[in-house]
Amino acid sequence: MNRITKLFLIEKPIIQAGMIWCSPWQLAAAVSNHGGLGVIGAGSMYPEVLDEHIRKCKAVTDKPFGVNLPLLYPDIASHIDTIIKHKVPVVITSAGNPKIWTAKLKEHGIIVVHVVSSAKFAVKSELAGVDAIVAEGFEAGGHNGREETTTLTLIQDVVSKVNIPVIAAGGIATGRAMLAAMVLGADAVQIGSRFVAAEESSAHDNFKNKVIESGEGDTTLILKEVTPVRLIHNEFFTELQTAYQNNSSPEELKEILGKGRAKKGMFEGDMAQGELEIGQVATYITEVMPAAKIMDEILEEFVARKEQLKNNNYDY
Amino acid sequence: MNRITKLFLIEKPIIQAGMIWCSPWQLAAAVSNHGGLGVIGAGSMYPEVLDEHIRKCKAVTDKPFGVNLPLLYPDIASHIDTIIKHKVPVVITSAGNPKIWTAKLKEHGIIVVHVVSSAKFAVKSELAGVDAIVAEGFEAGGHNGREETTTLTLIQDVVSKVNIPVIAAGGIATGRAMLAAMVLGADAVQIGSRFVAAEESSAHDNFKNKVIESGEGDTTLILKEVTPVRLIHNEFFTELQTAYQNNSSPEELKEILGKGRAKKGMFEGDMAQGELEIGQVATYITEVMPAAKIMDEILEEFVARKEQLKNNNYDY
Repeated sequence: MNRITKLFLIEKPIIQAGMIWCSPWQLAAAVSNHGGLGVIGAGSMYPEVLDEHIRKCKAVTDKPFGVNLPLLYPDIASHIDTIIKHKVPVVITSAGNPKIWTAKLKEHGIIVVHVVSSAKFAVKSELAGVDAIVAEGFEAGGHNGREETTTLTLIQDVVSKVNIPVIAAGGIATGRAMLAAMVLGADAVQIGSRFVAAEESSAHDNFKNKVIESGEGDTTLILKEVTPVRLIHNEFFTELQTAYQNNSSPEELKEILGKGRAKKGMFEGDMAQGELEIGQVATYITEVMPAAKIMDEILEEFVARKEQLKNNNYDY
Repeated sequence: MNRITKLFLIEKPIIQAGMIWCSPWQLAAAVSNHGGLGVIGAGSMYPEVLDEHIRKCKAVTDKPFGVNLPLLYPDIASHIDTIIKHKVPVVITSAGNPKIWTAKLKEHGIIVVHVVSSAKFAVKSELAGVDAIVAEGFEAGGHNGREETTTLTLIQDVVSKVNIPVIAAGGIATGRAMLAAMVLGADAVQIGSRFVAAEESSAHDNFKNKVIESGEGDTTLILKEVTPVRLIHNEFFTELQTAYQNNSSPEELKEILGKGRAKKGMFEGDMAQGELEIGQVATYITEVMPAAKIMDEILEEFVARKEQLKNNNYDY
């Protein structure tokens, strides 16, 4: 037991990241049923869709699970009501000010976690009353911070500045990376990209295959002036790069981005024109497999590396 | 003993990075005398200056030490002759093709290590015959790769693709980061930024103080079209940013950069107009101290964290 497994009442300190278009109730339930914390990604769901996913998740697991909630979401108040109505055990908020909703959620006995990309906002989140922090480094897929602080740098800084538990995110897809994160001071890890390629993920098969094919240097953090996001290189990405070379304004970049790009790519499978959010760890993702098997592989390697340490393999 | 301490015949698996304007014979000798591998940074030295630094280093230590050699250096052939003449035990090459000089250096019994920022070039370096790899992540100070792969992602990939020993670099300034790097599969660590703030470093006091004051988000990788480099934000950095906003060409950027910027900043102490190369770990650097004390602090934390692991503190 550690601070995170005690807080969430879970067996294994693996949190599955709530990801738009990729993390439906099937994925969340699979992870929770296998002893981690499964998380439904509400960012791509209308209120009635989130309601349905929570109901279906509860129908197939009696283990704790969570909902990821980007606070800038237009239907946020409605989502909060749905979460409270269903007594969702854990809410992981991101992209917004944790001061606004934390107290209300906690009044209803919900555990609140906030995602940050800097120690500065980790401290602010602790002051806002959240129960734990997800600290996400530059290598992570999807939306990210402007400081570009990597997981290796960020985790050490955050754990030295807050007293609440810290979940490391960004660059973690293997057991050795999980152990490294815990050596740096994290209590648990949040894993996104690797679960995109889970059988239970709602990512389009084209996207899962694209993740598997992607290697070193195939993702880049872009759109820093609009909202920084790490994407796989494709036609749409090249269009953005050209726009940068032509000195486009943030407004012009937003126009190119348009609406629905993430759905088009990750959910509908348009590999040319879609927005394909994935982390640098795509390099290590080589196979689609059930979420439970992903967790088993990671934890087996975690335990094996820890045994190596015990046997003094790193003595000098 | 591990593969790196055996290869270099050193006691402690800490390599001090050879850094332009910051790593003279005094720093290299201090690190080598304390059981690590001290490295003279030849990148900022004329041939006669390198000759002097090697002679002075040998006069005060009988331990192995190294020279860091950027292969694009104009006087490279002359540097190679000097290194061979003095039988320098280890050469760490960077910024260039390891095929050209590796065989000649090895003929003279010199151990050759090459610095890479990608697994692709790690594999090429192994084929070129080098004895070990320094794999340096995005968070590192100074010159860096275009792929922006972070240390956490890079080390795992490199160790899975080469058979020679791997030294992790970028983001390592503490014992916990050193242990994390070894958990990821590295045999040793190369530490740069923290040794900039060593008493024996030739960095100007203004620069050492600037590093100490710098915190989260105060460095950025810039000049990606010319030669990517991580710098502390200052007037010169702002000038570059403005040039980017004005859509300047690589040629215009090179003109702004001009010549001698690194010397002006790091060696002569011009904090406004100088080029100030430092890693994201500047956040953790809070004090100027002797190189030996830096090493002791890092290794004490390394051992303490390893003990925690042995005591099952990360069990779940």
